[in-house]
This record gives sequence, structure tokens and C-alpha cells, in this order.
Amino acid sequence: MSMVRRSADMLVEFRQMFGGAGEAENRRILLGAEEMAGKGRLFNHMILRTGCEVAWHIHHGDCETYYVLKGRGAYSDNGVMTELGPGDTAFVNDGEGHSIRCISEEPLEVIALVLYTA
Amino acid sequence: MSMVRRSADMLVEFRQMFGGAGEAENRRILLGAEEMAGKGRLFNHMILRTGCEVAWHIHHGDCETYYVLKGRGAYSDNGVMTELGPGDTAFVNDGEGHSIRCISEEPLEVIALVLYTA
Repeated sequence: MSMVRRSADMLVEFRQMFGGAGEAENRRILLGAEEMAGKGRLFNHMILRTGCEVAWHIHHGDCETYYVLKGRGAYSDNGVMTELGPGDTAFVNDGEGHSIRCISEEPLEVIALVLYTA
Repeated sequence: MSMVRRSADMLVEFRQMFGGAGEAENRRILLGAEEMAGKGRLFNHMILRTGCEVAWHIHHGDCETYYVLKGRGAYSDNGVMTELGPGDTAFVNDGEGHSIRCISEEPLEVIALVLYTA
């Protein structure tokens, strides 16, 4: 069924990500697999304040895309460090790992999408 | 394989959408099914200038989510008109239709995700 979910009604979760510094603000665009036709499990607008991070983790059975909206991040692309800024896209596949940390004064804002690979 | 695609290297397509007014700027975050583990066919950052629209269309075999980043849109949610602004999410399922038109002076910026439902 079609739906419109207003900004004020978004589910917003603050959580430490894989033991990393600080807490991420996860604004959930879709609420997991049931709203994603079973094709993925996460579609979030994620906000990381200065110094906050999603610590290193490896994906199993799924792949993840980050699309940067604002701010700058120090990013590990499966072990290779680089920097991400607005408009940059980073992708890790099943079996690969990544991490990201906000290194700008303004928050790092990212659209995150996790799709199943199986 | 993991990848980082820089903003400057994004594929950007300008096209009229379903016969609607003006052209949408489609900044392709992922390049279709091959980059989406076969789970969907579109993951775009779409920009509509004032008066530009994605005209009415019905989805067959897939579902689409719009997540508004900036600007305001007049939106048909499967035939019911409403207005969308930043942070709002709109979803249509298989067999349902929608349209959206930029009604703000600033461009309407939307993240669009199409996942297969079959």
C-alpha cells in the first residue's frame, strides 16, 4: 500500500555503531525488510557529528552503499583509507568491510542502503 | 568489489520523465540492477527545477520510494494529492502510481529508490 510518512513521524534512533566513538543519528527512511519488498534491510539517512564514527565491520550476506549529502568523512574502503565528501558514493559487497568517521565541523550526512546479496 | 565513486564521476542524465514538464536531473548513485545485487533497478539523487515534474506513472513489478532532501513538491500518492517537503518519505507499491512536481523556488531534491517486488 502506498504511503506518505512525514519528517516528524520518522523513526529516529541514536546508537553506537559497532563500538565506534559517539552515536549515530539514524533516521529510518524505510523500516527494514518488510518495507523493502524483502530485498534489503536498511535505508537510512544517517548523521554523524564531528568525531563520531561507524566502526569497522564486515558485511555478510548483504552489500552497503553510502551516498554522502554533507560534511566530510574518513572512510576505510575495505581497508584502504580515503576521504569522502558531498556527492561521493562508497560501496562494499558481501564479505567486504568498511568504516567511516566524521572529520568535518559540520555533521556528516549520508544515505545508507543495505541490500541482500543472497 | 568495493568501490568509491567520486561526485565528479557520477553519471548524470537529464531527461523528460513520463512526458512531464521540463527535465529531471538524475544523478545515478548506483547504475541499475548490476550494482544493486539484482534487487532493484534505480537508486538516484533526482533534482527537479521549479515547475519540472515526474508525470504520473504506475509501477509494474517494482516499488518506489522518494525521500525529500530539499524543496517542496506537489505529489500524487496513488491519486491523492499532497505536498512533500524535506524529510518526507513517499512510497508506492507494485500496481500503484504517483507523480511529483517542484513547486518551490529552490530545486526539489529527492533520493529515489526502485526495488523489484517479484
